[in-house]
Amino acid sequence: MASIFTRILNGEIPGHIVAEDDDFFAILDIFPLAKGHTLVVPKKEVDYIFNLDPELLGRYMVFAQVVAKAIKRVIPCKRIGVAVIGLEVPHSHIHLVPINHIGDIDFSKPKLKFEDDVFVQVRESIRGAFNEPDSDFR
Amino acid sequence: MASIFTRILNGEIPGHIVAEDDDFFAILDIFPLAKGHTLVVPKKEVDYIFNLDPELLGRYMVFAQVVAKAIKRVIPCKRIGVAVIGLEVPHSHIHLVPINHIGDIDFSKPKLKFEDDVFVQVRESIRGAFNEPDSDFR
Repeated sequence: MASIFTRILNGEIPGHIVAEDDDFFAILDIFPLAKGHTLVVPKKEVDYIFNLDPELLGRYMVFAQVVAKAIKRVIPCKRIGVAVIGLEVPHSHIHLVPINHIGDIDFSKPKLKFEDDVFVQVRESIRGAFNEPDSDFR
Repeated sequence: MASIFTRILNGEIPGHIVAEDDDFFAILDIFPLAKGHTLVVPKKEVDYIFNLDPELLGRYMVFAQVVAKAIKRVIPCKRIGVAVIGLEVPHSHIHLVPINHIGDIDFSKPKLKFEDDVFVQVRESIRGAFNEPDSDFR
């Protein structure tokens, strides 16, 4: 059976897609550690990130970079932190988490809860930020 | 002034280098969350990982993959987790952390303490694991 991420991509279950290309997509984490917390996912359903073909892995990180820059443009934060845990959903995903403090990435913490209209607003603002000019401060 | 990571690479201060190529190197984190916790660092002193040139970023992740596979061969764990926080040392570094539980990556937790001979043993075992055969289970 397709993973929960693939099912979101295919429109079979609700979700908030912020970016997609031929090989990767990005969706809002609906159990976020911070507003703007996004999951970057390869379309190929590989469980463990380091089992990805190196060529695909390299491009995966570059796709995540583009998404991270878009998030940073619209979510106030010091950095976009990165985490890959991989012990739950067996479909590799990179967490991109807006952070301000060293303890902001901790998946044992209670997750934030937002109404659906907040997710929609965040999704649309990130989607709108892909073509903004970049700077070294972002 | 060179970063603490560059100074370790240059032998100016003590450290445990586990891998190096033309553009990247990997050292043991001396304030580890787990035995085998390793930092993967680009030789170019860029502060924020997503400010790296995309071509270099892609190869950076592939170098991290090679290191992660070596760690996984010698440190018993479910996965090698990945984290980039970037709020302390202003020289980009990817944390590779052997993990078994979802809360194992939390940088606000107390760090482990090992005697130097333990770091040496871990360093040497990882170094010796780069040329071992790989499998899908690693």
